[in-house]
Amino acid sequence: MQVVDAILPARAAFGAVPRPLGFVPTMGALHRGHLELVRAARASCRTVAVSLFVNPLQFGPDEDFARYPRDLAGDCRQLEEAGVDLVFAPERETMYPPGFSTSVDVGEIGARYEGAVRPGHFRGVATVVLKLLNVVRPDALFLGQKDAQQTAVLRRMVRDLDLDVRVEIVPTVREADGLALSSRNAYLSVAQRAAAPTLQRALRELYAALARGDGKENAVRAARGLLDPAATLDYLDVVDADTFEPLDAPRAGAFVVGAARFGQTRLLDNIWLPA
Amino acid sequence: MQVVDAILPARAAFGAVPRPLGFVPTMGALHRGHLELVRAARASCRTVAVSLFVNPLQFGPDEDFARYPRDLAGDCRQLEEAGVDLVFAPERETMYPPGFSTSVDVGEIGARYEGAVRPGHFRGVATVVLKLLNVVRPDALFLGQKDAQQTAVLRRMVRDLDLDVRVEIVPTVREADGLALSSRNAYLSVAQRAAAPTLQRALRELYAALARGDGKENAVRAARGLLDPAATLDYLDVVDADTFEPLDAPRAGAFVVGAARFGQTRLLDNIWLPA
Repeated sequence: MQVVDAILPARAAFGAVPRPLGFVPTMGALHRGHLELVRAARASCRTVAVSLFVNPLQFGPDEDFARYPRDLAGDCRQLEEAGVDLVFAPERETMYPPGFSTSVDVGEIGARYEGAVRPGHFRGVATVVLKLLNVVRPDALFLGQKDAQQTAVLRRMVRDLDLDVRVEIVPTVREADGLALSSRNAYLSVAQRAAAPTLQRALRELYAALARGDGKENAVRAARGLLDPAATLDYLDVVDADTFEPLDAPRAGAFVVGAARFGQTRLLDNIWLPA
Repeated sequence: MQVVDAILPARAAFGAVPRPLGFVPTMGALHRGHLELVRAARASCRTVAVSLFVNPLQFGPDEDFARYPRDLAGDCRQLEEAGVDLVFAPERETMYPPGFSTSVDVGEIGARYEGAVRPGHFRGVATVVLKLLNVVRPDALFLGQKDAQQTAVLRRMVRDLDLDVRVEIVPTVREADGLALSSRNAYLSVAQRAAAPTLQRALRELYAALARGDGKENAVRAARGLLDPAATLDYLDVVDADTFEPLDAPRAGAFVVGAARFGQTRLLDNIWLPA
């Protein structure tokens, strides 16, 4: 497994690999969810590349950029074992040298839900992923379903900017009790960890209530009742998978989405309805 | 010469040409300035591609999008004679289908001078050029020096987004009396056409006054005195070629820039100081 940290060597390395090239962008602190993305990439691509980069642009000023978990050596060990061919692990200054000032704005889809709670977040995500795509030039981009709105934002960017890359969404990996894997789960106290699966239970209840014909207001109220009382709900809703506009009722291909805070830790989860 | 108007055939056509591929993006209404870009591209590239697309995103609501000159057949004749290999001439709906919402923001460099007079202009320019680069995938991008700030904005975008393309700036082509060629010169009345070269004279005077040590305020006043009294000056300044930040005095590689309105027609010009 080759690890590169600068743009020109990365371009040379990625330009020379057998195609198709599958690419998994990550912020490191890898867990089984990331390894499932790698597995999906290996299943359809001759070469698999992963990036490890904690992207400052997608963190707000009061967010957890400084304390976000970092473990380059451990991450590389896991990726090598998982059969990854190439790793791109740039320094911050490599991605954002002095004078850097360009950003990608995906419009309304990036301003709802996560974008409303975290202004500028999706601008940061879209910008770094576009830069990574321009360096790696993959044939396929593998994204985790857990960050549902991120998948919609990046599919929007790929379409709008005529990027020649296929986007694959890989199902969320969960703990035995239903908690979606996330690098941020490491922040949870024992009590918060025990309470965290109630987010997924609330999403299931929201879907069930809507599916049996309850109005959205009642359904959200019922769902909210299943969330741990110590958690703070940011939102619970059912949305179009392409636009992230709210829907009155579930339909094929929609996402049921939610976000809640357990102490200082924000967790996201969703249910993706079969298309 | 092959002319394509859709994304997928364009991708196929551009993907199959001998390299290096030189690319000249235009809004059509071609003049000798554009043909000079083609000549420069032919001098260093095995294949030359030109796009013809009047980009609505870069026009303000009160600007001349609707009446901007269009002559696809005449443009194609000129390009064929000039030895162009491929033309990409998409419809508006091909570039901006329903739901399109992504844009590229280059930051401060796009908010000064032309960006201050034309809010959103450089966002529109950067967005369309990024899309065109993603379809054409050229090795070199040829831009006219006449739109100096546009060259700086696009060089900024290319650097910031890690685009693997060389940017070449081609010197401005002028009429015998010094007027920089522009598709918008066609809007000028006889009297305005006679007055238009005073913009270039004002720029020369600004440079000369600064070079002999006059302070900028005095130099701008002297330069302004050479502009036709019926014209309205938008700005006259000397700026860094990379950042378009104003400079107190000319230095190697700087631009002396100006914009003025002759009736309803805004004209730009600049002097690029030898690096």
